[in-house]
Amino acid sequence: MPTDARRKMIESAVTLLAMRGLQGTAFSDVLERSGAPRGSIYHHFPQGKDQLIDAAIDLAGERTLHVLDAVEGASPTAITTYFLDLWREVLVRSNFRAGCSVLAVTVATDSPALLEHATAIFRAWQARLADLYVAAGVDPGMASSFATMLIAASEGAVVLSRAQRSLEPFDQVAATLIDTTP
Amino acid sequence: MPTDARRKMIESAVTLLAMRGLQGTAFSDVLERSGAPRGSIYHHFPQGKDQLIDAAIDLAGERTLHVLDAVEGASPTAITTYFLDLWREVLVRSNFRAGCSVLAVTVATDSPALLEHATAIFRAWQARLADLYVAAGVDPGMASSFATMLIAASEGAVVLSRAQRSLEPFDQVAATLIDTTP
Repeated sequence: MPTDARRKMIESAVTLLAMRGLQGTAFSDVLERSGAPRGSIYHHFPQGKDQLIDAAIDLAGERTLHVLDAVEGASPTAITTYFLDLWREVLVRSNFRAGCSVLAVTVATDSPALLEHATAIFRAWQARLADLYVAAGVDPGMASSFATMLIAASEGAVVLSRAQRSLEPFDQVAATLIDTTP
Repeated sequence: MPTDARRKMIESAVTLLAMRGLQGTAFSDVLERSGAPRGSIYHHFPQGKDQLIDAAIDLAGERTLHVLDAVEGASPTAITTYFLDLWREVLVRSNFRAGCSVLAVTVATDSPALLEHATAIFRAWQARLADLYVAAGVDPGMASSFATMLIAASEGAVVLSRAQRSLEPFDQVAATLIDTTP
């Protein structure tokens, strides 16, 4: 099943990006982790590593958008808490070894196409969160600026907690974000 | 002047980390950028690349602490604005190609020693900012949690602005941080 092998390689790339960063996500590591045969890399990603990375952040981006469907119609505080819990889970499940694959690509790529894709993902998350807040009755301007703040602060808090290998900074930031939810 | 060569290599490593991430900061790039002779790497950093990276984040960490002396005795809002301006300048001067070297190391290293050093730097920034807010009359608990929030949100906002190659997300987050300064 070629599509299954492709999916496994992409999943492995997402995990490796989140744990080791862009250059720590080599084809050889992806093959080892996914159990895919060597030839399959060139079959599925003929344009090379950037094509795999592109597919990986696409999956990570879409997955986050998809799980946000769960808070459609929820209160503003419930939306904030849910988004924060997604990140909290990444930290806890990985024992503080993983973070955001899209951030990892942003801070290490020199490809304009990958950067453009990264910003499209961040913008899609921001727009989706802003829409959810607006649907919950928040003023559109406030919803938009809080959505940006929520993403920025979560991303930064995940980094602080990875460094510290502790939930302390993340939970401190999360408490402030919940308190300041419009 | 051996110490001058060492300093130049460390400065180059800080710049490369901020622009290309940990694995994008190879000895060969540091030599090219600093103009140091090949042998000097092994002379000054006999323990290898991690020793250079350690010195680089040390410099970046100390430099930030040092420049914060300028807002000793300033108002809470002035402290927040000053800290944000430091990051804004990194984005503008690099045309959105650079971010935080300590974050770059955190998301890509598998060295427990480097992670520990990264968290020590983040904690030192947090403690220094908290002290500044307390000196400006802010309640200590609030000062501490706002200092963590300021660092997390700035770090995340720098990443969003790098991805977007625009100050828009950074300035949106900055405005919220200035508004919510205790």
